[in-house]
Amino acid sequence: MKRTLASTAVGILAVAIASTASAALKPEEQIQYRQAGYSFMSWNMGKIKANLERDYNQAQVAAAANAIAAIANSGMGALYGPGTDKDVGDTETHVKPELFQNMEEVGKLAGDFVAAADKLNAVAATGDQSAVQTAFGDLGKTCKACHQKFRADD
Amino acid sequence: MKRTLASTAVGILAVAIASTASAALKPEEQIQYRQAGYSFMSWNMGKIKANLERDYNQAQVAAAANAIAAIANSGMGALYGPGTDKDVGDTETHVKPELFQNMEEVGKLAGDFVAAADKLNAVAATGDQSAVQTAFGDLGKTCKACHQKFRADD
Repeated sequence: MKRTLASTAVGILAVAIASTASAALKPEEQIQYRQAGYSFMSWNMGKIKANLERDYNQAQVAAAANAIAAIANSGMGALYGPGTDKDVGDTETHVKPELFQNMEEVGKLAGDFVAAADKLNAVAATGDQSAVQTAFGDLGKTCKACHQKFRADD
Repeated sequence: MKRTLASTAVGILAVAIASTASAALKPEEQIQYRQAGYSFMSWNMGKIKANLERDYNQAQVAAAANAIAAIANSGMGALYGPGTDKDVGDTETHVKPELFQNMEEVGKLAGDFVAAADKLNAVAATGDQSAVQTAFGDLGKTCKACHQKFRADD
Protein backbone atom coordinates (compact mmCIF):
# COMPACT_ATOMS: atom_id res chain seq x y z
CA MET A 1 0.00 0.00 0.00
CA LYS A 2 2.85 2.32 0.85
CA ARG A 3 4.31 1.61 -2.55
CA THR A 4 1.01 2.28 -4.27
CA LEU A 5 0.68 5.69 -2.66
CA ALA A 6 4.28 6.56 -3.40
CA SER A 7 3.84 5.46 -7.01
CA THR A 8 0.76 7.62 -7.38
CA ALA A 9 2.62 10.61 -6.06
CA VAL A 10 5.43 9.97 -8.53
CA GLY A 11 2.92 9.73 -11.34
CA ILE A 12 1.32 13.04 -10.49
CA LEU A 13 4.60 14.84 -10.01
CA ALA A 14 5.97 13.43 -13.22
CA VAL A 15 3.33 15.26 -15.22
CA ALA A 16 4.53 18.62 -14.00
CA ILE A 17 8.25 18.02 -13.75
CA ALA A 18 10.31 17.05 -16.77
CA SER A 19 13.22 14.91 -15.59
CA THR A 20 16.85 15.72 -16.26
CA ALA A 21 17.16 12.53 -18.25
CA SER A 22 14.33 13.38 -20.60
CA ALA A 23 15.36 17.00 -21.01
CA ALA A 24 18.05 15.70 -23.35
CA LEU A 25 15.49 14.04 -25.61
CA LYS A 26 14.30 15.78 -28.76
CA PRO A 27 10.57 16.61 -28.90
CA GLU A 28 9.98 13.97 -31.60
CA GLU A 29 11.70 11.34 -29.43
CA GLN A 30 9.50 12.25 -26.47
CA ILE A 31 6.39 11.88 -28.67
CA GLN A 32 7.60 8.51 -30.01
CA TYR A 33 8.40 7.15 -26.56
CA ARG A 34 5.09 8.23 -25.04
CA GLN A 35 3.21 6.69 -27.96
CA ALA A 36 5.20 3.48 -27.48
CA GLY A 37 4.12 3.40 -23.83
CA TYR A 38 0.44 3.89 -24.66
CA SER A 39 0.65 1.37 -27.49
CA PHE A 40 2.19 -1.29 -25.28
CA MET A 41 -0.38 -0.65 -22.55
CA SER A 42 -3.09 -0.99 -25.21
CA TRP A 43 -1.79 -4.44 -26.19
CA ASN A 44 -1.93 -5.51 -22.56
CA MET A 45 -5.41 -4.05 -22.05
CA GLY A 46 -6.51 -6.08 -25.07
CA LYS A 47 -5.07 -9.26 -23.56
CA ILE A 48 -6.91 -8.71 -20.29
CA LYS A 49 -10.15 -8.00 -22.19
CA ALA A 50 -9.74 -11.23 -24.18
CA ASN A 51 -9.09 -13.18 -20.98
CA LEU A 52 -12.22 -11.76 -19.35
CA GLU A 53 -14.32 -12.65 -22.40
CA ARG A 54 -12.90 -16.14 -22.94
CA ASP A 55 -10.75 -18.58 -20.97
CA TYR A 56 -9.27 -16.74 -18.02
CA ASN A 57 -5.50 -17.26 -17.70
CA GLN A 58 -4.49 -15.78 -14.37
CA ALA A 59 -0.75 -15.67 -15.11
CA GLN A 60 -1.30 -13.82 -18.38
CA VAL A 61 -3.68 -11.31 -16.79
CA ALA A 62 -1.30 -10.70 -13.88
CA ALA A 63 1.65 -10.13 -16.23
CA ALA A 64 -0.39 -7.77 -18.40
CA ALA A 65 -1.66 -5.78 -15.42
CA ASN A 66 1.89 -5.57 -14.07
CA ALA A 67 3.16 -4.19 -17.38
CA ILE A 68 0.40 -1.58 -17.49
CA ALA A 69 1.05 -0.48 -13.90
CA ALA A 70 4.82 -0.34 -14.39
CA ILE A 71 4.47 1.80 -17.52
CA ALA A 72 1.91 4.03 -15.78
CA ASN A 73 4.37 4.54 -12.93
CA SER A 74 7.42 5.18 -15.10
CA GLY A 75 7.13 8.95 -15.15
CA MET A 76 5.67 9.47 -18.63
CA GLY A 77 4.90 13.08 -17.73
CA ALA A 78 8.52 13.78 -18.59
CA LEU A 79 7.63 12.97 -22.21
CA TYR A 80 5.36 16.02 -22.49
CA GLY A 81 8.17 18.57 -22.67
CA PRO A 82 8.33 21.82 -24.66
CA GLY A 83 7.73 21.37 -28.38
CA THR A 84 5.72 18.15 -28.00
CA ASP A 85 2.35 19.91 -28.27
CA LYS A 86 2.28 19.60 -32.06
CA ASP A 87 3.54 17.37 -34.88
CA VAL A 88 7.31 17.39 -35.34
CA GLY A 89 8.25 16.51 -38.91
CA ASP A 90 6.90 13.05 -39.68
CA THR A 91 6.17 12.41 -36.02
CA GLU A 92 2.49 13.12 -35.46
CA THR A 93 0.94 13.62 -32.05
CA HIS A 94 -2.74 13.20 -31.26
CA VAL A 95 -2.57 15.30 -28.13
CA LYS A 96 -4.64 18.50 -28.07
CA PRO A 97 -2.60 21.62 -27.33
CA GLU A 98 -5.08 22.33 -24.50
CA LEU A 99 -3.39 19.62 -22.42
CA PHE A 100 -0.38 21.86 -21.95
CA GLN A 101 -2.54 24.71 -20.65
CA ASN A 102 -4.34 22.54 -18.10
CA MET A 103 -1.57 20.82 -16.21
CA GLU A 104 -3.40 20.84 -12.89
CA GLU A 105 -6.36 18.96 -14.40
CA VAL A 106 -4.01 16.65 -16.31
CA GLY A 107 -2.20 15.88 -13.06
CA LYS A 108 -5.49 14.87 -11.48
CA LEU A 109 -6.43 12.66 -14.47
CA ALA A 110 -2.96 11.11 -14.47
CA GLY A 111 -3.21 10.43 -10.74
CA ASP A 112 -6.58 8.69 -11.23
CA PHE A 113 -5.07 6.63 -14.04
CA VAL A 114 -2.02 5.54 -12.03
CA ALA A 115 -4.17 4.68 -9.01
CA ALA A 116 -6.52 2.59 -11.17
CA ALA A 117 -3.57 0.81 -12.83
CA ASP A 118 -2.10 0.02 -9.40
CA LYS A 119 -5.48 -1.28 -8.24
CA LEU A 120 -5.85 -3.55 -11.27
CA ASN A 121 -2.31 -4.81 -10.76
CA ALA A 122 -3.00 -5.66 -7.11
CA VAL A 123 -6.32 -7.35 -7.90
CA ALA A 124 -4.93 -9.30 -10.88
CA ALA A 125 -2.29 -10.86 -8.64
CA THR A 126 -4.98 -12.50 -6.52
CA GLY A 127 -6.75 -14.15 -9.43
CA ASP A 128 -10.33 -13.12 -8.54
CA GLN A 129 -11.84 -12.69 -12.01
CA SER A 130 -14.86 -10.62 -10.99
CA ALA A 131 -12.67 -8.17 -9.09
CA VAL A 132 -10.39 -7.94 -12.13
CA GLN A 133 -13.43 -7.22 -14.29
CA THR A 134 -14.38 -4.29 -12.05
CA ALA A 135 -10.85 -2.91 -11.76
CA PHE A 136 -10.35 -3.28 -15.52
CA GLY A 137 -13.53 -1.29 -16.19
CA ASP A 138 -12.46 1.39 -13.72
CA LEU A 139 -9.05 1.68 -15.39
CA GLY A 140 -10.67 2.00 -18.81
CA LYS A 141 -12.75 4.90 -17.51
CA THR A 142 -9.62 6.77 -16.44
CA CYS A 143 -8.09 6.25 -19.91
CA LYS A 144 -11.25 7.54 -21.56
CA ALA A 145 -11.52 10.54 -19.20
CA CYS A 146 -8.20 11.87 -20.50
CA HIS A 147 -8.75 10.84 -24.13
CA GLN A 148 -12.09 12.63 -24.32
CA LYS A 149 -10.63 15.86 -23.05
CA PHE A 150 -7.15 15.88 -24.48
CA ARG A 151 -6.84 13.45 -27.40
CA ALA A 152 -7.74 14.82 -30.80
CA ASP A 153 -9.15 11.53 -32.13
CA ASP A 154 -11.95 11.09 -29.58
CA MET B 1 12.77 -15.35 -5.85
CA LYS B 2 9.90 -17.69 -6.55
CA ARG B 3 8.32 -14.97 -8.66
CA THR B 4 11.56 -14.35 -10.53
CA LEU B 5 11.88 -17.99 -11.49
CA ALA B 6 8.24 -18.21 -12.48
CA SER B 7 8.60 -15.03 -14.55
CA THR B 8 11.62 -16.41 -16.33
CA ALA B 9 9.75 -19.57 -17.18
CA VAL B 10 6.87 -17.51 -18.54
CA GLY B 11 9.29 -15.47 -20.63
CA ILE B 12 10.86 -18.54 -22.16
CA LEU B 13 7.57 -20.25 -22.83
CA ALA B 14 6.13 -17.10 -24.33
CA VAL B 15 8.66 -17.20 -27.13
CA ALA B 16 7.46 -20.58 -28.27
CA ILE B 17 3.76 -20.32 -27.60
CA ALA B 18 1.61 -17.68 -29.26
CA SER B 19 -1.23 -16.83 -26.90
CA THR B 20 -4.89 -17.07 -27.81
CA ALA B 21 -5.27 -13.36 -27.27
CA SER B 22 -2.50 -12.44 -29.68
CA ALA B 23 -3.57 -14.96 -32.30
CA ALA B 24 -6.34 -12.50 -33.17
CA LEU B 25 -3.83 -9.75 -33.92
CA LYS B 26 -2.77 -9.03 -37.50
CA PRO B 27 0.94 -9.52 -38.25
CA GLU B 28 1.47 -5.76 -38.64
CA GLU B 29 -0.14 -5.17 -35.24
CA GLN B 30 2.15 -7.75 -33.64
CA ILE B 31 5.18 -6.02 -35.18
CA GLN B 32 3.98 -2.59 -34.00
CA TYR B 33 3.30 -3.78 -30.45
CA ARG B 34 6.64 -5.55 -30.08
CA GLN B 35 8.45 -2.46 -31.40
CA ALA B 36 6.51 -0.35 -28.88
CA GLY B 37 7.72 -2.63 -26.10
CA TYR B 38 11.36 -2.41 -27.16
CA SER B 39 11.09 1.34 -27.69
CA PHE B 40 9.64 1.92 -24.24
CA MET B 41 12.30 -0.30 -22.66
CA SER B 42 14.92 1.72 -24.54
CA TRP B 43 13.65 4.97 -23.04
CA ASN B 44 13.90 3.45 -19.58
CA MET B 45 17.38 2.05 -20.24
CA GLY B 46 18.40 5.57 -21.28
CA LYS B 47 17.06 7.01 -18.04
CA ILE B 48 18.99 4.49 -15.94
CA LYS B 49 22.16 5.22 -17.95
CA ALA B 50 21.73 8.96 -17.38
CA ASN B 51 21.20 8.39 -13.65
CA LEU B 52 24.36 6.29 -13.42
CA GLU B 53 26.36 8.96 -15.24
CA ARG B 54 24.96 11.97 -13.37
CA ASP B 55 22.90 12.55 -10.22
CA TYR B 56 21.50 9.21 -9.09
CA ASN B 57 17.76 9.36 -8.41
CA GLN B 58 16.85 6.07 -6.78
CA ALA B 59 13.08 6.43 -7.29
CA GLN B 60 13.51 7.12 -11.01
CA VAL B 61 15.90 4.20 -11.49
CA ALA B 62 13.60 1.83 -9.58
CA ALA B 63 10.58 2.88 -11.64
CA ALA B 64 12.54 2.49 -14.89
CA ALA B 65 13.86 -0.95 -13.94
CA ASN B 66 10.36 -2.01 -12.93
CA ALA B 67 8.96 -0.95 -16.30
CA ILE B 68 11.69 -2.85 -18.15
CA ALA B 69 11.14 -6.01 -16.10
CA ALA B 70 7.36 -5.85 -16.44
CA ILE B 71 7.59 -5.46 -20.21
CA ALA B 72 10.17 -8.26 -20.41
CA ASN B 73 7.79 -10.52 -18.47
CA SER B 74 4.66 -9.62 -20.45
CA GLY B 75 4.91 -12.48 -22.93
CA MET B 76 6.25 -10.62 -25.97
CA GLY B 77 7.03 -13.94 -27.62
CA ALA B 78 3.36 -13.99 -28.62
CA LEU B 79 4.14 -11.02 -30.90
CA TYR B 80 6.36 -13.16 -33.15
CA GLY B 81 3.53 -15.02 -34.84
CA PRO B 82 3.26 -16.23 -38.45
CA GLY B 83 3.75 -13.47 -41.02
CA THR B 84 5.80 -11.24 -38.73
CA ASP B 85 9.15 -12.36 -40.17
CA LYS B 86 9.08 -9.67 -42.86
CA ASP B 87 7.77 -6.18 -43.55
CA VAL B 88 3.98 -5.93 -43.79
CA GLY B 89 2.93 -2.96 -45.94
CA ASP B 90 4.29 0.19 -44.32
CA THR B 91 5.17 -1.68 -41.13
CA GLU B 92 8.85 -2.53 -41.29
CA THR B 93 10.50 -5.09 -39.06
CA HIS B 94 14.21 -5.24 -38.29
CA VAL B 95 14.12 -8.86 -37.25
CA LYS B 96 16.15 -11.31 -39.32
CA PRO B 97 14.08 -14.21 -40.70
CA GLU B 98 16.65 -16.54 -39.09
CA LEU B 99 15.07 -15.83 -35.71
CA PHE B 100 12.05 -17.88 -36.68
CA GLN B 101 14.22 -20.88 -37.60
CA ASN B 102 16.13 -20.83 -34.31
CA MET B 103 13.43 -20.77 -31.66
CA GLU B 104 15.38 -22.90 -29.21
CA GLU B 105 18.30 -20.45 -29.23
CA VAL B 106 15.91 -17.48 -29.13
CA GLY B 107 14.22 -19.02 -26.10
CA LYS B 108 17.57 -19.22 -24.35
CA LEU B 109 18.44 -15.60 -25.22
CA ALA B 110 14.99 -14.45 -24.11
CA GLY B 111 15.39 -16.33 -20.84
CA ASP B 112 18.75 -14.64 -20.20
CA PHE B 113 17.17 -11.28 -20.97
CA VAL B 114 14.20 -11.78 -18.64
CA ALA B 115 16.46 -13.03 -15.84
CA ALA B 116 18.76 -10.01 -16.22
CA ALA B 117 15.79 -7.63 -16.26
CA ASP B 118 14.43 -9.25 -13.07
CA LYS B 119 17.86 -8.95 -11.47
CA LEU B 120 18.16 -5.27 -12.32
CA ASN B 121 14.65 -4.67 -11.00
CA ALA B 122 15.48 -6.37 -7.69
CA VAL B 123 18.78 -4.52 -7.33
CA ALA B 124 17.32 -1.13 -8.30
CA ALA B 125 14.77 -1.41 -5.50
CA THR B 126 17.56 -1.48 -2.91
CA GLY B 127 19.25 1.67 -4.12
CA ASP B 128 22.84 0.36 -4.20
CA GLN B 129 24.22 2.27 -7.18
CA SER B 130 27.26 0.08 -7.84
CA ALA B 131 25.10 -3.06 -7.90
CA VAL B 132 22.72 -1.31 -10.29
CA GLN B 133 25.69 -0.42 -12.52
CA THR B 134 26.67 -4.09 -12.72
CA ALA B 135 23.14 -5.38 -13.27
CA PHE B 136 22.53 -2.69 -15.89
CA GLY B 137 25.64 -3.75 -17.80
CA ASP B 138 24.61 -7.39 -17.59
CA LEU B 139 21.16 -6.58 -18.94
CA GLY B 140 22.67 -4.60 -21.81
CA LYS B 141 24.75 -7.63 -22.76
CA THR B 142 21.63 -9.78 -23.06
CA CYS B 143 20.01 -7.17 -25.31
CA LYS B 144 23.09 -7.06 -27.51
CA ALA B 145 23.41 -10.86 -27.65
CA CYS B 146 20.05 -11.10 -29.40
CA HIS B 147 20.48 -7.95 -31.52
CA GLN B 148 23.79 -9.15 -32.93
CA LYS B 149 22.32 -12.48 -34.00
CA PHE B 150 18.82 -11.61 -34.98
CA ARG B 151 18.43 -7.87 -35.64
CA ALA B 152 19.20 -6.70 -39.15
CA ASP B 153 20.63 -3.33 -38.08
CA ASP B 154 23.48 -4.61 -35.92
